[in-house]
Amino acid sequence: MPLTPDQQAEVDAQRAQAQPTLRAVSPGMEKHLYTAIPVLDHGFVRVIDYMGDDAAICQAARVSYGKGTKSVQNDEGLIRYLMRHWHSTPFEMCEVKLHVKLPVFVARQWIRHRTANVNEYSARYSILDREFYIPAPEHLAAQSVVNNQGRGAALEGEEAARVLEILKTDANRAYDHYEAMISQEGQLGLARELARMNLPANIYTQWYWKVDLHNLLHFLRLRADAHAQYEIRVYADAICNVVADWVPFAYKAFEDYRMGGATISATALDCVRRMLKGEEVTQENSGMSKGEWREFMDTLG
Amino acid sequence: MPLTPDQQAEVDAQRAQAQPTLRAVSPGMEKHLYTAIPVLDHGFVRVIDYMGDDAAICQAARVSYGKGTKSVQNDEGLIRYLMRHWHSTPFEMCEVKLHVKLPVFVARQWIRHRTANVNEYSARYSILDREFYIPAPEHLAAQSVVNNQGRGAALEGEEAARVLEILKTDANRAYDHYEAMISQEGQLGLARELARMNLPANIYTQWYWKVDLHNLLHFLRLRADAHAQYEIRVYADAICNVVADWVPFAYKAFEDYRMGGATISATALDCVRRMLKGEEVTQENSGMSKGEWREFMDTLG
Amino acid sequence: MPLTPDQQAEVDAQRAQAQPTLRAVSPGMEKHLYTAIPVLDHGFVRVIDYMGDDAAICQAARVSYGKGTKSVQNDEGLIRYLMRHWHSTPFEMCEVKLHVKLPVFVARQWIRHRTANVNEYSARYSILDREFYIPAPEHLAAQSVVNNQGRGAALEGEEAARVLEILKTDANRAYDHYEAMISQEGQLGLARELARMNLPANIYTQWYWKVDLHNLLHFLRLRADAHAQYEIRVYADAICNVVADWVPFAYKAFEDYRMGGATISATALDCVRRMLKGEEVTQENSGMSKGEWREFMDTLG
Amino acid sequence: MPLTPDQQAEVDAQRAQAQPTLRAVSPGMEKHLYTAIPVLDHGFVRVIDYMGDDAAICQAARVSYGKGTKSVQNDEGLIRYLMRHWHSTPFEMCEVKLHVKLPVFVARQWIRHRTANVNEYSARYSILDREFYIPAPEHLAAQSVVNNQGRGAALEGEEAARVLEILKTDANRAYDHYEAMISQEGQLGLARELARMNLPANIYTQWYWKVDLHNLLHFLRLRADAHAQYEIRVYADAICNVVADWVPFAYKAFEDYRMGGATISATALDCVRRMLKGEEVTQENSGMSKGEWREFMDTLG
Repeated sequence: MPLTPDQQAEVDAQRAQAQPTLRAVSPGMEKHLYTAIPVLDHGFVRVIDYMGDDAAICQAARVSYGKGTKSVQNDEGLIRYLMRHWHSTPFEMCEVKLHVKLPVFVARQWIRHRTANVNEYSARYSILDREFYIPAPEHLAAQSVVNNQGRGAALEGEEAARVLEILKTDANRAYDHYEAMISQEGQLGLARELARMNLPANIYTQWYWKVDLHNLLHFLRLRADAHAQYEIRVYADAICNVVADWVPFAYKAFEDYRMGGATISATALDCVRRMLKGEEVTQENSGMSKGEWREFMDTLG
Repeated sequence: MPLTPDQQAEVDAQRAQAQPTLRAVSPGMEKHLYTAIPVLDHGFVRVIDYMGDDAAICQAARVSYGKGTKSVQNDEGLIRYLMRHWHSTPFEMCEVKLHVKLPVFVARQWIRHRTANVNEYSARYSILDREFYIPAPEHLAAQSVVNNQGRGAALEGEEAARVLEILKTDANRAYDHYEAMISQEGQLGLARELARMNLPANIYTQWYWKVDLHNLLHFLRLRADAHAQYEIRVYADAICNVVADWVPFAYKAFEDYRMGGATISATALDCVRRMLKGEEVTQENSGMSKGEWREFMDTLG
Repeated sequence: MPLTPDQQAEVDAQRAQAQPTLRAVSPGMEKHLYTAIPVLDHGFVRVIDYMGDDAAICQAARVSYGKGTKSVQNDEGLIRYLMRHWHSTPFEMCEVKLHVKLPVFVARQWIRHRTANVNEYSARYSILDREFYIPAPEHLAAQSVVNNQGRGAALEGEEAARVLEILKTDANRAYDHYEAMISQEGQLGLARELARMNLPANIYTQWYWKVDLHNLLHFLRLRADAHAQYEIRVYADAICNVVADWVPFAYKAFEDYRMGGATISATALDCVRRMLKGEEVTQENSGMSKGEWREFMDTLG
Repeated sequence: MPLTPDQQAEVDAQRAQAQPTLRAVSPGMEKHLYTAIPVLDHGFVRVIDYMGDDAAICQAARVSYGKGTKSVQNDEGLIRYLMRHWHSTPFEMCEVKLHVKLPVFVARQWIRHRTANVNEYSARYSILDREFYIPAPEHLAAQSVVNNQGRGAALEGEEAARVLEILKTDANRAYDHYEAMISQEGQLGLARELARMNLPANIYTQWYWKVDLHNLLHFLRLRADAHAQYEIRVYADAICNVVADWVPFAYKAFEDYRMGGATISATALDCVRRMLKGEEVTQENSGMSKGEWREFMDTLG
């Protein structure tokens, strides 16, 4: 359960208070507001606010391109055109604010996306809760033997049991010691900003994260990708579902042109042309390295 | 009249369609939505959308600072504290989207503020309207004789008349020629992206401009300042009024700590301390240059 | 001649003063420093400073990926790998500072790329020179009849002559009036910040523009593209040559993966697979709109 | 010793290879290049590259302000003028690239400054070293009893000993378990990207960090401040010394106008004026809250 009963009561109260507005309203997003979408064992994603919808993207594009865009009859066609031709500024006209609870090692990857606004819970001022990410057994992956980036098969049996035992015990011991160090009963109590250094990277933190749709889609392209670490990918997947409800046309175009599409080099494009003419193209005569050729074969399915 | 009757009808239609939302609503901002606030002779500022209110700033701050901020009892006190201590991220949690119509030379200053999203009307694709900024006589300022930045007194009599005549005639002639060059009656017609180069910098353009509250306040501090060029300052002043209605606590804190406040150097601070002890401080024994001393005297009123 | 004799003497003096440094040095870039590369009729691009080289990209990547990158044996292979997999941060470790002289309407497009540092010549404080871009006859393109974005064939005969006459005469008249308005002989003289509004968008301005390699390549991908306006493309082309000398491996990877490559949608990728299996794929059974299909056919050559 | 003998040999080799360049050279910075400045128990700051010097700031400003800046006779005067009037873009024309080794909890604060380029050592791909920050006894501060932000006196005696024992033991145990989990001897070995989650926030990481001078000074203003956490302040202090050698005029102006200066609210400014007229001003008649008044009294010394 990611939320305490108190927190759930607060969400319910927020969802009970509809007010009239003259702004653009996205019905798909109103449905999500404030509700906690569970992610991992203790994390969540909550939509706190949003600005704009599919129509807002088109409105901005039509200011830019004026009469030039009238030839594209409808909003969906225009959005597909903008996505296909890398017109990013109309997508920047939508904005979303999320409340996210996530393990620190996930937060460290996430924050590398710099074009966003963040307010994180501060362990200088406040005391962190005793909540740690402990992977489900099926996600206890081995180091890949193929490359340095991926994961291999899940650990099993004794090895898996030992890892889980270590993660749980160390996390709890670290937290016990954190509490003991800051306690002010019978002692001065270590400063919180120092005591936190004893806590491991699977402890949960939380933040408000606000980002425009263009930069959010860029984040999702990288983090909902099969090569992203599982623990951040599940957050990206949860957000993908939210975006699909928020701006359905933009999300469909994103799926077609970005998530499901591929970028092909000049060399690879030349190979495709040769193959379509019936030529036998192999790695040796392709002009590609073995690694590139393997990826190219994957792209062609 | 900045809006055509068609445009005004569109605004009226937009203002007639209230819908329920669960998001934070700012009553002061709902009042402004879509309406054109006239600026200069043909320009305007229109609020198209907004996200957040004073409470959203506090909500984000309380996530960051947790229990640490409970000691500040109320929202206004917390906002003043955040502004005083340069905590910028809570203010980034609010966002506004404006539709602005403005002369090109003002747009060129404005765009130097890079932390914003912009969709400008494109003169590559579309045809610009015949609308030029012609200063009111009282704003036809002479070059300052004191420094290179400011304006002097307004021109008068024949000189003023001649300047107005030039600005009007040149603008209209340039536009006549622009139309003649792109006309496709009896000729190929020059590409719009080339023909536009004949148009002067007082022609009006328009854009959608989206920015977070922190960066907007930074813009306003520089552009609503007495040293800013009059033609951009009137836009900043119009936006100040909007912000005051949108987030009244934040705006009051901004007025007190930024617009009405002053930044004082270590040297100047030392002079203040000496003066308060009764010492006679002059430019000569102040450690400041003449320029700095003059500005310091202005600050002390 | 883009430089005056005085300016050329200054360049010569700067190029005569080599000093020892312990920093990374790019021999290809030292060759360019300070020299003006002519662009359009009065414009130029000058390299003023740079940071890093191909090795600096690899150095940063190896800090990030540690032992994981040792498997890529050499610098060129690593750089190709980084480019192929959209690892942008190592490319951000190189930086370049350019001095550019360019028409105002080109500057207005350029400045839309916000992730850069800019110091532009200020017409508030200073007096602009009498220099205007007048297209060469072969670049006097007609408006495209196919779409709103492109140019058609060059104007010819009387129409071309008339356009050139208008551009030259209007520019000079506007400048005469600019001078007359700011003149302080026998009158107060209009403030420069106001007088500039009479000047057309083909007047030249200049700026220092500083950007990291990742963002520069993004700029070049959009602006050296065949669909970019000719007048900005020639600047991008000039900069491409500079980058090829500065970071040869990175530039070659950029040419292969970005400039010469293509992004293909999921739908188009599916069509390629079907075509490679021998299926007859047409626009009708492709799942693409007519516009997309036409672009897809262009991509497949 | 922050560097291993191998690393020191590499630094020595890099410092032995001076090459000629035509770029601006800062003698004060050449002195620092590659050398490790020790910070905390295992950390360091190393200058890897830089662009520009004091003269480059002025050069950019003179492009912007043209003849308008000739009245400021010398570079130092111009730099002070720019700093005093918040002209930030000329300072953006200088850039520095640092290699920093720092504890993870410090890195987490640091990364909140988003306007910089970062390549961090990746614990997804690589194995972290067994190096942890253990505070010196005099920095084992208690939680402040006055406010939630500061530190109180240092812990002493048994309490201090117990805290140090916890920090050392927990860090080493966590690292032992990290090694045990990823070991591939007789087991699959847990993926590195998962195993790292067991490591505490005082483990050292490292990154390349590249930033322009304007944003660096903003970072230093906040992080070299007396209210910043000690463990990040020592990094900021080390960088301050580097900047003082790199751009001496800019650094002096920064010290006077930013580090040693103060921002005073409109209300406080009014109080100063009243005090200078001889009026008795107290918190009660000042218009300030108790917190503001206390800070104001501190400012006035």
